[in-house]
Amino acid sequence: MALIVQKYGGTSVGNPERILNVARRVIETQEAGHSVVVVVSAMSGVTDGLIKLAREVSPNPTEREMDVLLSTGEQTTIALTAMAISGLGRQAVSLTGAQAGIVTSEVHTRAKIATISPERVLEALGGGNIVVIAGFQGETADGSITTLGRGGSDLTAIAIAAAIKADLCQIFTDVDGVYTCDPRVVKNATKIHEISYDEMLEMASSGSKVMQSRSVEFAKKFGVVFEVRSSFNHNPGTIVKEETESMEAVVVRGVSIEKNQAKVTISHVPDKPGTAARIFTTLAAANVVIDMIVQSAGAEGATDISFTLSKDELPKATAALEPVVREIGAAGIKAQDGIAKLSIVGIGMRSHSGVAAKLFEALSAGGINIQMISTSEIKTAVILEEARIAEAANLVHAAFGLGAE
Amino acid sequence: MALIVQKYGGTSVGNPERILNVARRVIETQEAGHSVVVVVSAMSGVTDGLIKLAREVSPNPTEREMDVLLSTGEQTTIALTAMAISGLGRQAVSLTGAQAGIVTSEVHTRAKIATISPERVLEALGGGNIVVIAGFQGETADGSITTLGRGGSDLTAIAIAAAIKADLCQIFTDVDGVYTCDPRVVKNATKIHEISYDEMLEMASSGSKVMQSRSVEFAKKFGVVFEVRSSFNHNPGTIVKEETESMEAVVVRGVSIEKNQAKVTISHVPDKPGTAARIFTTLAAANVVIDMIVQSAGAEGATDISFTLSKDELPKATAALEPVVREIGAAGIKAQDGIAKLSIVGIGMRSHSGVAAKLFEALSAGGINIQMISTSEIKTAVILEEARIAEAANLVHAAFGLGAE
Repeated sequence: MALIVQKYGGTSVGNPERILNVARRVIETQEAGHSVVVVVSAMSGVTDGLIKLAREVSPNPTEREMDVLLSTGEQTTIALTAMAISGLGRQAVSLTGAQAGIVTSEVHTRAKIATISPERVLEALGGGNIVVIAGFQGETADGSITTLGRGGSDLTAIAIAAAIKADLCQIFTDVDGVYTCDPRVVKNATKIHEISYDEMLEMASSGSKVMQSRSVEFAKKFGVVFEVRSSFNHNPGTIVKEETESMEAVVVRGVSIEKNQAKVTISHVPDKPGTAARIFTTLAAANVVIDMIVQSAGAEGATDISFTLSKDELPKATAALEPVVREIGAAGIKAQDGIAKLSIVGIGMRSHSGVAAKLFEALSAGGINIQMISTSEIKTAVILEEARIAEAANLVHAAFGLGAE
Repeated sequence: MALIVQKYGGTSVGNPERILNVARRVIETQEAGHSVVVVVSAMSGVTDGLIKLAREVSPNPTEREMDVLLSTGEQTTIALTAMAISGLGRQAVSLTGAQAGIVTSEVHTRAKIATISPERVLEALGGGNIVVIAGFQGETADGSITTLGRGGSDLTAIAIAAAIKADLCQIFTDVDGVYTCDPRVVKNATKIHEISYDEMLEMASSGSKVMQSRSVEFAKKFGVVFEVRSSFNHNPGTIVKEETESMEAVVVRGVSIEKNQAKVTISHVPDKPGTAARIFTTLAAANVVIDMIVQSAGAEGATDISFTLSKDELPKATAALEPVVREIGAAGIKAQDGIAKLSIVGIGMRSHSGVAAKLFEALSAGGINIQMISTSEIKTAVILEEARIAEAANLVHAAFGLGAE
């Protein structure tokens, strides 16, 4: 008998019929001899409806009240899910985030989990209940309702799993697991059976948006083994866990691609301390999220600094930078979109040489030009022309032998 | 400066525009120099929508989870109301029933308020906030969400007013106040400016359903002065309070009418101890709610027992009674609908004689036959033919000089 936490997202609980489907899956798990905690999100569409209501009463709703409002979405789902389970003849008890003992920081709409006091969850489990917990929410130490921001329900599931020392945490979603590459782009992409936390983090930050990084980081920190799988079929998913020796045998775990990227180059930046800092604090102040940064080797006391970002952020970035470019005495600023990022990720890279070379070779053989390169310990990323990203992904995927036979 | 609790029902907060209207009224009250606590219901229609959802996941939803579900309705309204107030430039804080310190019994869907710990409400008021509290809900001592049943938001408002020692509690609703009779029936009915708790209770129990009796009883018990008034205009409403000497000068405060009544007569009931008990415990066991009971003077060891009830309950009542009638050896049972009740209510009746006589006279002058009579200290009720109830109400209303000039 194991203690299992299952998390179902908004699509999986999107209507009464799907909630009944979730109830049946949860009961199956209990019938297999396990104790089950279920974490649920708001039914899809509900949160958007509440946000719309908020905008109708105030142009700029206060964040504290936004949390009070949005938390009703998950509270509705826990009640309905517990009812559905009871209606199918099993004991169930619902708990809001606060009732489940989730205490957070005081930063409304994007609170961090501070502590979890799982006594009430454990007591309900001990009484033979399936325990249904509202994802995405908690309360401050002085009892105000908070929400955890994007990916908050995954975080709730993983944090609860850590707090109750669950054997496994299953994240049910609308995809089947983590794939070696996006199956819509690479037809013979295969499902990854096991992946390490670090690989999952690198995949998440390079475009494979199955989960938010913060949930993976939390799982890594507390050693929570979790599985990403589909709520619409019974296929096994992808297990995310601490790396094992056998994992290192695989050089590249997967290929991530991210479209809609843009590149900004500031040319002839005077090579003196503080100029890079000046550029990137300006961007941070303008809330522009930067991805790769490359500084080319300087000649005659000046360098070129390039960085990539989401295409949507381009106007905001160039507007913020124009005065800075003049101020620091750079020659100019050039913006370019129509580019994409391709990354290969694998902890095997640490112990295998020639991985980057093999990547460049594969792209070169296809006549695809590399515009920027960035490497970390377990990831190598390149910037390419967006129009050729699918072709590039297929070439690289094949070169590292990731496809199904 | 006074401390005022205002309660707005589901119609008054039925859409974002109306919530903004409530926010403006609340702010007006604060601007007049008062501290304000607002108690709100779920937006009209929301509760029904949630009940429908519940039925779609379970034929017989558990009451505990029903409370978790329904309490989201008021939680949505408190957040939107607080946002609306903040958007109009005033400080506001929302509190759920639990956060407001309302501790209830453990009877889900119809919990009783056990205690209120108003520290958090007072603290928020002290900080200059308008405090917006969810009506209809509380939590048990061990932290499960409960709801208070019908009229629960009125009860919340009056209980909070008692707990924080408010100077006045205003119940905003879709009627203008309590009238001397239903203005749809008696055209020149006038608004009652002041009414005692007891009169309000008798009016409530005789068809003037402005408020549930339990809220009035709670107000009486804790001496909470409240005003019933409309949220759609600025007319003063009806003040409900402890009786004063001047109130006794008015013999009849108002005339209540209740249609859709029915009468059951059990004839020739053997006049021995325990037969009446046998009849009415049977009805109670069948959940039939009885109104008036009349036992006519018996002759030759047998009496007739009649009682009235809502017409809807008639089939249930006769079905339950048929075996009992045989068992106790009564002659038979006769059911009749098409009747209505007319009551006159007033604490002045205690010290004035001839009130009942005046009532009978007025009806007799109109040729209206009285089928049953029942009296209490401050009420006299008669049963009449339903078809003539409007005529009767106008005659009685005029006889006691209740109409506008």
